[in-house]
Amino acid sequence: MHWICPFFAKASYRSRHLPVRLCILRAFSSHLPNQVIEDVINRPSSQLGTATEKGNVIIKTAKGTRDFSPKQMVIREKIFSTIISCFKRHGAATIDTPVFERKDLLFDHYGEESKLVYELKDQAGELLCLRYDLTVPFARYLAMNKVSHFKRYHIAKVYRRESPSLATGRYREFCQCDFDIAGQYDPMIPDAECLKVMHEILSALQFGDFLIKINERRILNGIFTICGVPSTKFETACCTLDKLGKVTWKEVKNEMVEEDGISPDAVDRIGEYVQLHGGICLIEKLLQDPKLSQSKLAIEGLEDMKLLFEYLTLFGIIDQVTMDLSLARGLNYYTGVIFEAVLQRQPSDAKESLRIGSVAAGGRYDGLVAKFDPKGKKVPCVGVSIGVERIFSILERNAEMSKEKIRATETEVLVAAAQQNFLAERIKLISELWGAGIKAEMLYKKNPKLLNQLQYCEKHGIPLVLIIGEEEQKDGVVKLRDVSSRKEIIVPKENFIEEIKKRLER
Amino acid sequence: MHWICPFFAKASYRSRHLPVRLCILRAFSSHLPNQVIEDVINRPSSQLGTATEKGNVIIKTAKGTRDFSPKQMVIREKIFSTIISCFKRHGAATIDTPVFERKDLLFDHYGEESKLVYELKDQAGELLCLRYDLTVPFARYLAMNKVSHFKRYHIAKVYRRESPSLATGRYREFCQCDFDIAGQYDPMIPDAECLKVMHEILSALQFGDFLIKINERRILNGIFTICGVPSTKFETACCTLDKLGKVTWKEVKNEMVEEDGISPDAVDRIGEYVQLHGGICLIEKLLQDPKLSQSKLAIEGLEDMKLLFEYLTLFGIIDQVTMDLSLARGLNYYTGVIFEAVLQRQPSDAKESLRIGSVAAGGRYDGLVAKFDPKGKKVPCVGVSIGVERIFSILERNAEMSKEKIRATETEVLVAAAQQNFLAERIKLISELWGAGIKAEMLYKKNPKLLNQLQYCEKHGIPLVLIIGEEEQKDGVVKLRDVSSRKEIIVPKENFIEEIKKRLER
Repeated sequence: MHWICPFFAKASYRSRHLPVRLCILRAFSSHLPNQVIEDVINRPSSQLGTATEKGNVIIKTAKGTRDFSPKQMVIREKIFSTIISCFKRHGAATIDTPVFERKDLLFDHYGEESKLVYELKDQAGELLCLRYDLTVPFARYLAMNKVSHFKRYHIAKVYRRESPSLATGRYREFCQCDFDIAGQYDPMIPDAECLKVMHEILSALQFGDFLIKINERRILNGIFTICGVPSTKFETACCTLDKLGKVTWKEVKNEMVEEDGISPDAVDRIGEYVQLHGGICLIEKLLQDPKLSQSKLAIEGLEDMKLLFEYLTLFGIIDQVTMDLSLARGLNYYTGVIFEAVLQRQPSDAKESLRIGSVAAGGRYDGLVAKFDPKGKKVPCVGVSIGVERIFSILERNAEMSKEKIRATETEVLVAAAQQNFLAERIKLISELWGAGIKAEMLYKKNPKLLNQLQYCEKHGIPLVLIIGEEEQKDGVVKLRDVSSRKEIIVPKENFIEEIKKRLER
Repeated sequence: MHWICPFFAKASYRSRHLPVRLCILRAFSSHLPNQVIEDVINRPSSQLGTATEKGNVIIKTAKGTRDFSPKQMVIREKIFSTIISCFKRHGAATIDTPVFERKDLLFDHYGEESKLVYELKDQAGELLCLRYDLTVPFARYLAMNKVSHFKRYHIAKVYRRESPSLATGRYREFCQCDFDIAGQYDPMIPDAECLKVMHEILSALQFGDFLIKINERRILNGIFTICGVPSTKFETACCTLDKLGKVTWKEVKNEMVEEDGISPDAVDRIGEYVQLHGGICLIEKLLQDPKLSQSKLAIEGLEDMKLLFEYLTLFGIIDQVTMDLSLARGLNYYTGVIFEAVLQRQPSDAKESLRIGSVAAGGRYDGLVAKFDPKGKKVPCVGVSIGVERIFSILERNAEMSKEKIRATETEVLVAAAQQNFLAERIKLISELWGAGIKAEMLYKKNPKLLNQLQYCEKHGIPLVLIIGEEEQKDGVVKLRDVSSRKEIIVPKENFIEEIKKRLER
C-alpha cells in the first residue's frame, strides 16, 4: 500500500489531542475513496520494523515501536535543536517528569481515548500508566508545586496503545515537543504567542507550505446550543464534527443523526455554520448573526477570536491563518481557542499533491490544573505541541531524495600511522587532540595499513588526517593531509594543534 | 537520617551492572557501623517527593520517581552537554531504542536482578518490560541490524523496581549515559579508550577526586579455579566478593562458606588474592605467581591487563587507576575487563570525608550480542556508563552551597512599555527581535507598569530592556536599558537590533 502516502510509511506523529484515526483520515481524505480509507483503518495491525529469529525467540522491537539509526538521529537532532532554540528564544524553561504516572491521576482526562493508555503491572498496589501526552503531567506538576505562572517546554516520548500499521505509520511510542504558557494574563496574548511559536518552527524547518486552522470551543458550544443540541451531547458532536474535511458533510450529518442521536433539524442548522471558514470578515459576520449572537458564550469566543486575529496580524503571521468552524479536536480538556497546522503540499514531490495531516496542534485548557489542585485553584493554560515524528518522516524522505550524504559522527581528524609500530605515538597524539577539544579518532589496530586509514576517512567524511611515520618521527614533525584535496603539509610537532584548529575554523 | 550522606539525599545513580544495594553499601561502609547500614537497607520504602491531596486522590509522582524543576534541568543539561561533547570528541554516533522491550529478549541477561525489571500489562499476548539498562537493547540493536563495528552513545532513562528510599536516594527511574565500542579489534585499545572517556568526563565535571578501579573477569575466574571453587559457583562467589570493601573480609568469608557453600580452605586461598590491589607491579607479581600461572585464563587476563596499563600510561591517566582484585561487579554478561570510578572526597565538604560510591562503571561483554544473533555471531563489546544521577546530586548540592544564582531561562531582552497603549508596538518590536534570533520576552499584559517590567528583569536575570513610550514613539527611537548598571541609551529604531547584538556579544 505504499502508494497511499509514501512519506508516511514511517511517520508516527499523532496530533496531541485528536484520536489518531481521525488525524490520519484527514491526511488521506481528499485523494482516496472512502473504501480505501476504511481498509487502512480496519486492517489487522501489522508489525512494524524488521525482525530476526533466534531459536524460538523473535528478535525485534515491541509492536509499534522502532529504533532510530545514527543517520536518523542526525535528522532528529536537527529538528529538536530548531525547536528548542525557538522555545528558548521565547523565554521558556524546561522541566522533566517521569515516563509513568499514577493511573488515578492520568485516566480521567482523555475521554474515550483513555482505553489507549498503557498500564503497567500492579506494583504492590500502585497502579501506573505510561504517559499519554505531556499536557496532563504538566498540569499535575503545576498543581503539585503550586506554580501559577510558567512558560515551559518539554520534549519527551509519549505512549499510545494504538493498532500500529505500516501504511499509516502509526507508532505506539512517539515524541512530542510541547510549549505551554500557564498563568492568568490579559486575553489572547499568550495564545497569540503559541501560534507565533508554531509558525516560527514550521517555517524554520522548511518542509513546505502550511496553513493554521483556528476555532474556539465556546463558539462551537454556542453553535450547538442555538441549534438545539443538548449540552450532554456536545462532546460526541465535537468528535463527529471533527471528521468534516476528511469525509463529506453528508456523512458527518448521517453520523450525527444516527449514531449521536441529534435531531435532523438541529444537524441541518449546525451545517449552516460549521462549513464556514475564512478570516476576520467571517468573525465580524458571525458577530452580527442574529441567532448566534443570542449565545453569550459564542459572543465571548468571537470577541476573543477578533482580538487574536488582531495580534496575529501584528505578529505578521495572519496570511497563513484561517478560522475553520469545523475544527473541533478530540480531547475533553480544551476550553477556548483550538488550532492545528496542516501541511499544504510537499514541495519536493509536487506530483503527489496530497493534503497532509496536521504537523502541530494545541489550544487553551483553563480547567485542567484545577482538577489536580486540592482547593480547585484555576491556572489557565494554553499550549502547542509540535508533531515531530511526522516532520521527521518528511525531512528523512527529503534527505533520501536529495541523496545528501549524512554524517553520523562529527570526527574532524583521524590519527594515522604511515608504518608499523606507531600505536604509542598515535595514542599520544590523539590524547593531545582530545585535550584541545578536537574531535579525533584512530583505528583500533596496532598496525593498520595507511590505505585502510585513508579509506576510513573517505567512508566517514573525516576531513583531516594526521600522519606519523618513521620519517616524521625522525624530523620531529607530523604530516597533515586534507582528505578531499589530498594535499599534504609537514607541520612541526609543537604546532599541529594550532594548525588543525586554524583549518577547522575555515 | 540526613547526617548519613547528605549529598545523596536525592541521588539516584546505580552502577550499571551492580545491585544497588551493594553500591549504596560501598558508599557508606567506611563510616557507619553495620547496624546503621542494615537499618538503611531494610527500612520500609518511603515515598520520595512531595504530594498534595485532592479528594481521595493523592497528587504525587509514582513511587521512586521525581520531577525535575527548571533550575535542576539547567544543571542536568550542563552535565549532559559535557558528556555528549566528550562522546562526540571520541567519534561516537548516537541511536535511540524504545523504552520498552519484549520480555523474552530482556529477562535472561540480568541474573538475580531480573526481579527488578518492570513489566507492563499483557498487550494482547505481547509481554513487555521497561528497559533495565541500555546495554542489552544495544546488543539487541547490533544483532538485529547485523552491525559488527559501531562506536555509539546513548543517553536515556532506565527503570528498576527497587525499594526507593530517601536516605539512600534510590530512584526507580534514572538516567544513564552509555558509550560503547562494538567490534573485533586488537586487544585493549577500545577498552583503554573507554577508560579515557570516563576519565575525561569525570575530570571535566569537576566534582572532586576520583579513583578508577580495574579488574578482569578471567583473572577472577582463574583465582576461583585454582582455589578449588567449582565453576557453577563462580557467579555467586563474584556477587559475594563484590561486597569486600563495604564489609570486612571476615564477613565476606563467612558468607562464602555459609551461604555460597564454598569450602573454608578454598575461601582462605581466595582471600590471599582478592585483598590485593596495586599497579603494574601487582600484575607482574601475579604473572609470576606459581599457582595462578597454572590458570590459562588468568594468564590471558593478566597479559591483557598489562597491555591495558601500558595504554593507560600513554593516555596519561594511569595515576588515577588501580588494579583491585576485589572488584567483581554484579552482572552476568561481563567477560573481560571490568571497572568502576569511585569519588574519593567531596571538595566542597572536606569535613565529611566520606568514601562515595561509584560514579561511572563498565566493562567488556564479548558474548552478549551473540545471544541475539540467529547464527550466534559474536560481536565483542566494551563500554562505560556514566552515573549521571549521582553526579547531578553532587553538582546540585555544590550549586546550593555556593549560592550561585541559576537562571532557568536564557532571555536576553525584555520588551517593555513606558506608558499605556503600547501593546501593538511591543508585539512588533518583539517580532523583530525573534526574527533576528534574539531571545526576548514581554509581559502578557495590555498595559503593564514599567516598574513591574523592570522587576521582572531583575527577578529572571534578563540583562537588557527595550523600552518604547510616547516620547520614543514621537522621535522614532527606542530606549535600551542595561538592567544591572541601570544606564539607558536612546537608539534609532532602524538600529536597535544591531545595537542589541553588539551588546550581547560582549
